[in-house]
Amino acid sequence: MLRKILVLGAGKSTSYLLDYFLEKSDTEKLLLTIGDIDPKTIPTSIKDHHNCRVVPMDILNDEARRKEIKNSDIVVSMLPARFHIKVAEDCVAFKKHLVTASYISDEIEALDKALKKKGLIFMNEIGLDPGIDHMSAMQIIDRIRNQGGKMVLFESFTGGLVAPESDTNLWNYKFTWNPRNVVLAGQGGAAKFIQEGTYKYIPYHKLFRRTEFFEIEGYGKFEGYANRDSLKYREAYGLQEALTLYRGTMRRVGFSKAWNMFVQLGMTDDSYAVENSKGMSYREFTNLFLPYSPTDSVELKLRHYLKIDQDDSKWEMLSELHLFDAKKTIPLNHATPAQILQLILEDSWTLDEDDKDMIVMYHKFGYELHGKKLQIDANMVVIGENRTHTAMAKTVGLPVAIATLLILNEKIKTPGVQIPISKEVYDPILAELRNYGITFKEYEVPYLGYNPHSVGN
Amino acid sequence: MLRKILVLGAGKSTSYLLDYFLEKSDTEKLLLTIGDIDPKTIPTSIKDHHNCRVVPMDILNDEARRKEIKNSDIVVSMLPARFHIKVAEDCVAFKKHLVTASYISDEIEALDKALKKKGLIFMNEIGLDPGIDHMSAMQIIDRIRNQGGKMVLFESFTGGLVAPESDTNLWNYKFTWNPRNVVLAGQGGAAKFIQEGTYKYIPYHKLFRRTEFFEIEGYGKFEGYANRDSLKYREAYGLQEALTLYRGTMRRVGFSKAWNMFVQLGMTDDSYAVENSKGMSYREFTNLFLPYSPTDSVELKLRHYLKIDQDDSKWEMLSELHLFDAKKTIPLNHATPAQILQLILEDSWTLDEDDKDMIVMYHKFGYELHGKKLQIDANMVVIGENRTHTAMAKTVGLPVAIATLLILNEKIKTPGVQIPISKEVYDPILAELRNYGITFKEYEVPYLGYNPHSVGN
Repeated sequence: MLRKILVLGAGKSTSYLLDYFLEKSDTEKLLLTIGDIDPKTIPTSIKDHHNCRVVPMDILNDEARRKEIKNSDIVVSMLPARFHIKVAEDCVAFKKHLVTASYISDEIEALDKALKKKGLIFMNEIGLDPGIDHMSAMQIIDRIRNQGGKMVLFESFTGGLVAPESDTNLWNYKFTWNPRNVVLAGQGGAAKFIQEGTYKYIPYHKLFRRTEFFEIEGYGKFEGYANRDSLKYREAYGLQEALTLYRGTMRRVGFSKAWNMFVQLGMTDDSYAVENSKGMSYREFTNLFLPYSPTDSVELKLRHYLKIDQDDSKWEMLSELHLFDAKKTIPLNHATPAQILQLILEDSWTLDEDDKDMIVMYHKFGYELHGKKLQIDANMVVIGENRTHTAMAKTVGLPVAIATLLILNEKIKTPGVQIPISKEVYDPILAELRNYGITFKEYEVPYLGYNPHSVGN
Repeated sequence: MLRKILVLGAGKSTSYLLDYFLEKSDTEKLLLTIGDIDPKTIPTSIKDHHNCRVVPMDILNDEARRKEIKNSDIVVSMLPARFHIKVAEDCVAFKKHLVTASYISDEIEALDKALKKKGLIFMNEIGLDPGIDHMSAMQIIDRIRNQGGKMVLFESFTGGLVAPESDTNLWNYKFTWNPRNVVLAGQGGAAKFIQEGTYKYIPYHKLFRRTEFFEIEGYGKFEGYANRDSLKYREAYGLQEALTLYRGTMRRVGFSKAWNMFVQLGMTDDSYAVENSKGMSYREFTNLFLPYSPTDSVELKLRHYLKIDQDDSKWEMLSELHLFDAKKTIPLNHATPAQILQLILEDSWTLDEDDKDMIVMYHKFGYELHGKKLQIDANMVVIGENRTHTAMAKTVGLPVAIATLLILNEKIKTPGVQIPISKEVYDPILAELRNYGITFKEYEVPYLGYNPHSVGN
């Protein structure tokens, strides 16, 4: 008797997820059903697999959705997060487990009681970030605690970048995920974190000038800027007493300083539509944000406005994107600055077929043990294979797939709405990820923190 | 038979308004009724006037409100803008005219048809800004047009400042109006305007670095920063073809550059509450926005972060506000940065009893006449008497009062929801304002515009 896994949504992040299920389908006796609104995009190698069936499905069609959920043993939703709640409600009704890589919404959280009553598991935030970050951090935090250590510092940074062999532009960056999220990153409020017990707030227009630096053996230097809420998992991780909590996003050194030019100009604003955007040249777009002058060039005005010296490398980074080009035009009507900037960046930052992406993650754990302050740094680097089999798809999809199989096999048993922070969950998943080359390197480093000599201020 | 004027709300901006009605009450046969939630604050000289009655009134009490509106000949609402709609609906029901100094809301606008049917006038935006700006600008624009001129440029700036004789701090500024509006000024989206036919957008974090300069004979230099939407009255003023439209707020030169420090730090943010704000020192508040350091002082960190040279006068402006004081503490709990900054500023910027405020307004009109480009600059300066009889209260209250009497006397007759941009309205009001010292000086100046030689760019 085959066990039936239903995967809803077969978008571009699901390549490794689907491969994993099919690869295990004979030994684990799995029948994979893929419900997708546009099944044409699913590769033949998957569609034609003897343990796979594909069902065209509009997720808003209640009847079709319920039929498949009812007929499954476990459900994986890779749909956009706003659709999860409909799936989740059906899962409660038909008593099915559910796995997603998305953040827990209040609506999903509210199902916790019902789930526990029925012995069901809703595993959320089990992709890369959130996902692998939770699991890898909690494994080390729990180990430190089991040794009697007391956590005083936790920092965690993740970045979706381009692999060194495909790193061909001055920004050391290409889009490997949703470009819109990259353009809007950091917006919507001040970033908040704590350093040595002091709360710190960074407004959006300063965010990209307050970076930290990291070095990863064999991969060189990186920088990180703060996420909006570094305190989000303080309770979940049990870090209420830690003096430093800092979470952020990683880029290659220099990216943030250059990105800040867009922020300063106002090009990342998504709150209003530019007048007459259609047919506007890239140069005219740039000029919208600069003071009027009857005589000075757009170039000079921008240099002066942003105080860019003539030998500043940021300048070449702007030119590389054709921001001063009077011939390239914007095809979008009523577009926001952010939408136009995204379009301009996609011109230059789209992965080629053979380009490889790279995921980096960097954790710092500061703790006290037997009166001594110690620190462990841990990092992970994953390189993709090509534009379809990206490191992003691998690190998002594999944890989801592995968790699904572990739930099906009753290795993960604790019911309720949850994120992967318990040993029952992270140990077997991290072990299996290692078989796929997703591993962390750990280093014992001198504890520095931010206040090595406990100086007051 | 006395004509009955009902004034709702007798807040601090109403001193001149009430005086005007009472001064005219015998000759014009007026009975003034003041409806206010807290009549204790109304001065005895007004309360005890033989043509005045005061009614304690909660504006949300439908019965009390309707009784008074029904019993009046015309209604003036000086309430906070959100309450106008209730008053307006009653005015429609009981067939009364209504005058307010507030912006027209969509709800008020929707009453236009009903008003016209009943021959009622709702006069809005008839204070200072909006109000005197509309009237003084339209009087000159209409005159230019009547001469055959074609408008090509219109700029208009207004500021509520402190009079030279009371100008005792480094910011050349004190609060003469709602301090909260001053702290939040410019927030909520990019500023938008046109210069020589080119749209320009300024994000909030650059707004205070993109100022224009003005000189007013006898009063020295001023600067102006852009309002959010300079195109708001383009259609109303008939300026669809003007190449330059720019509206803004005036300050003394240097204010904006210094204010920008608060913006850069993130201290004007009203979107989140600071953790543990109660009891925090001013110095700790400042440190929230600066990078952590175990050794460097708050002063040095701020200097370095904002790149303030040691001889930069901005520095003294910050010290004057006690931003580095470790003893002064914040009494507010769960306060936003903006609320805390307001409190700190109120410490230093509150008017003394004898302080005089000052209103400045500056218009520029560029136009073509008989093939020549010409320009008229017009400005107004009004100095207050003291903290109660402010120039602000005078320039907001008198136009409201004058319009009310003109409507009552059927000098203003055109019905509907309106702002004061027609000759029928602005001519008699501006004439009467002159009797109270509210006058504009006009100067014919060489047309400069922004592109005197029509150079392309």
